[in-house]
Amino acid sequence: MDQTSLQSGADFARRLDEQDELAPFRDAFVAAEPDLIYLDGNSLGRLPAKTAERVRATVEQEWGQGLIRSWNAGWYEAAARIGDKIGQLIGAGPGQVLVSDSTSVNLFKLVMAALALRPERDWIVSDVLNFPTDLYVLQGCVRLLGGRHRLHLVPSPDGMTADQPAMFAALDKRTALLTLSHVAFKSAYLYDAVEVTKRAHEVGALVLWDLSHSAGAVPIELDRWGVDLAVGCTYKYLNGGPGAPAFLYVRRELQEAALSPIWGWYGRRSPFGFDLDYEQAEGVTRFLVGTPPVLSMQAIEPGLDLILAAGMDRIRSKSVRLTSYLIYLADTVLGPLGFGLGSPRDPDRRGSHVSVRHPEAYRINRALIEEMAVLPDFREPDNIRMGLSPLYTSFADVWAAVDRIRQVVEEERYRRYPLERLPVT
Amino acid sequence: MDQTSLQSGADFARRLDEQDELAPFRDAFVAAEPDLIYLDGNSLGRLPAKTAERVRATVEQEWGQGLIRSWNAGWYEAAARIGDKIGQLIGAGPGQVLVSDSTSVNLFKLVMAALALRPERDWIVSDVLNFPTDLYVLQGCVRLLGGRHRLHLVPSPDGMTADQPAMFAALDKRTALLTLSHVAFKSAYLYDAVEVTKRAHEVGALVLWDLSHSAGAVPIELDRWGVDLAVGCTYKYLNGGPGAPAFLYVRRELQEAALSPIWGWYGRRSPFGFDLDYEQAEGVTRFLVGTPPVLSMQAIEPGLDLILAAGMDRIRSKSVRLTSYLIYLADTVLGPLGFGLGSPRDPDRRGSHVSVRHPEAYRINRALIEEMAVLPDFREPDNIRMGLSPLYTSFADVWAAVDRIRQVVEEERYRRYPLERLPVT
Repeated sequence: MDQTSLQSGADFARRLDEQDELAPFRDAFVAAEPDLIYLDGNSLGRLPAKTAERVRATVEQEWGQGLIRSWNAGWYEAAARIGDKIGQLIGAGPGQVLVSDSTSVNLFKLVMAALALRPERDWIVSDVLNFPTDLYVLQGCVRLLGGRHRLHLVPSPDGMTADQPAMFAALDKRTALLTLSHVAFKSAYLYDAVEVTKRAHEVGALVLWDLSHSAGAVPIELDRWGVDLAVGCTYKYLNGGPGAPAFLYVRRELQEAALSPIWGWYGRRSPFGFDLDYEQAEGVTRFLVGTPPVLSMQAIEPGLDLILAAGMDRIRSKSVRLTSYLIYLADTVLGPLGFGLGSPRDPDRRGSHVSVRHPEAYRINRALIEEMAVLPDFREPDNIRMGLSPLYTSFADVWAAVDRIRQVVEEERYRRYPLERLPVT
Repeated sequence: MDQTSLQSGADFARRLDEQDELAPFRDAFVAAEPDLIYLDGNSLGRLPAKTAERVRATVEQEWGQGLIRSWNAGWYEAAARIGDKIGQLIGAGPGQVLVSDSTSVNLFKLVMAALALRPERDWIVSDVLNFPTDLYVLQGCVRLLGGRHRLHLVPSPDGMTADQPAMFAALDKRTALLTLSHVAFKSAYLYDAVEVTKRAHEVGALVLWDLSHSAGAVPIELDRWGVDLAVGCTYKYLNGGPGAPAFLYVRRELQEAALSPIWGWYGRRSPFGFDLDYEQAEGVTRFLVGTPPVLSMQAIEPGLDLILAAGMDRIRSKSVRLTSYLIYLADTVLGPLGFGLGSPRDPDRRGSHVSVRHPEAYRINRALIEEMAVLPDFREPDNIRMGLSPLYTSFADVWAAVDRIRQVVEEERYRRYPLERLPVT
């Protein structure tokens, strides 16, 4: 690109940022390296400045000074309090969302509960776009239940989009549960959750959505959509911190019948009675198990407050503009360099990250990280995945990321790196 | 008591502290209220000063600056690294202990694994001194497995000590698993783990110890004792912070055959391949499930380093002296006021907390908390439970606690409080 085009491209991005009413939220996050283009907010969200303060207070005042008394001063009910706040972001009224365990453990609990609610049915339907750990959990449940259930994985025509007709054709009276990732982790394909939920309900199946890659980025209306069960992660677009405990949703109408497969004191009625026999707590609380990791749990709340202040409508609106802008640049700047698009073009079918594909994606990604101060993700076989987090990703970030990718390819910088994958990426 | 006796009692405690070679460790912990006698270290250990620094670095440098790169700079292998450190405290060689999930979830995983290893047996033996949440987990497992198993709870003759002959009589060829709390949560009864493990093995049963109330307080030699499985908590005597993730131990010889009932990406071979099919990781790693709560996990390590520096021998030696001293004072000072002892007199059968019993225990405990700056625990029906944590509990603390209990009773201060239990204690 010539200097005039570069200058006008950067100017255009700057104007988009000037018109962005969410731009001030960027200052609410710690950004220690001003030049760094961080595109992994879909994997580990940035640190909100208030979260650092909150964790410090939890450690130094609540633990250090309050000691065990702090259980009665906010810790004990944090699972429900923070759960209800997440509920506001995913269209769930109070008393249906809890913070607890990891996403995988929550998925295990809800899948086992769902299968027990449909004892006469023996099919679980999912698809190959689902997050791999979700498929592992499902495979583990099938094994644990003696192999009586079958897991049907609907293929994808292109590894990028779902085959909705094939999925609907797979649903029938044998289907106990349909479970999918609301936004696919590699391509950002966004399901039509209303239609999918409706079609599963038409055959009497339960529906469980994994919201890990959509919560905080995409509008979600669990109550209105009639969703039965959901799980999700708090450390991606919710900015809750590394490995922060996950959330689970159990629709109110199901709460009396649904039972957790793991019984523990946190999910017992009157847990401080120390009685020898378990009794289910009322409502969704029975899906709690053991004492939650308080430091990691308290760290979730300040990030939620930022999202609530920004509003999901404005977040989604900016997200669509960010991803559309990135796709426009990928087409015009990166297309001529051999890149293809790994994400849907229709914004209604797209979450808040964008994958671009290139035969040298692995080495290009390494060069971006090692020498260009850009942090995307590489995903096999040829995806460079870029998460755009509306609260802190700017249009200038998007422009600069694409321009640095262009430099890496034009200057063949990626050739300095081996083709062999590093052990952990 | 007259002033001379009071003075000489306090002097005696001070001399015991002067002779205590672990006394300097007290300064390694945050103690914001110098007058507070903290006797809940068996429930939530105090904050090590270094832990506050470590959590701050994890939040501000590792998350805030390192962002996702920090997974490759210590987070990813923390479960095994910290697990091996805990292993040093419980006599477990490397590669057998992991930090993961909550104690209850770990217990669920190991109980399910154990029952699958003994498919032809259908009895689980435990006793009424076991921690209630452990019994809930067992009851949940029995239910989940279709009611084929029976849970036999050996009674206690006095609610305080185990009935070892009755327990041994309950073990036979039907017994799949014997599982107990190594130190009982209410009375501090300490099992003869060597003998119990041996007797269970004689009938071919597996043994699972819950070390929550013994790890960091009592010498444990899992490898040498031939223990099969163990779980435990990191926030009691290990001072890991509120709800810090728990640990699990799977004996090396069992690791190839034992399978986790919950499959997740953290327990998969090559988790970053994102393959669609689960494959068991080698060794104990397969008992990991989802992404761990990093802030809460990193907080565990500085406390472990303190215990390793102090040495379990010296910790146990001081623990026995502290609990013996408390029992001596309970006999001589509190006995005449209507108190009885709720813990074993034999130090070989006693962990690091002591319960004293009184018909007005509930109200006395409230008065201690509300107006005497003493923090013990009340446990139904009539126990005041005092945890003595050798790294920071002094002999002067023990003396002052007993003297303040005496004041509450002699001055009838407890009468100001209602008999009704507060909702959360």
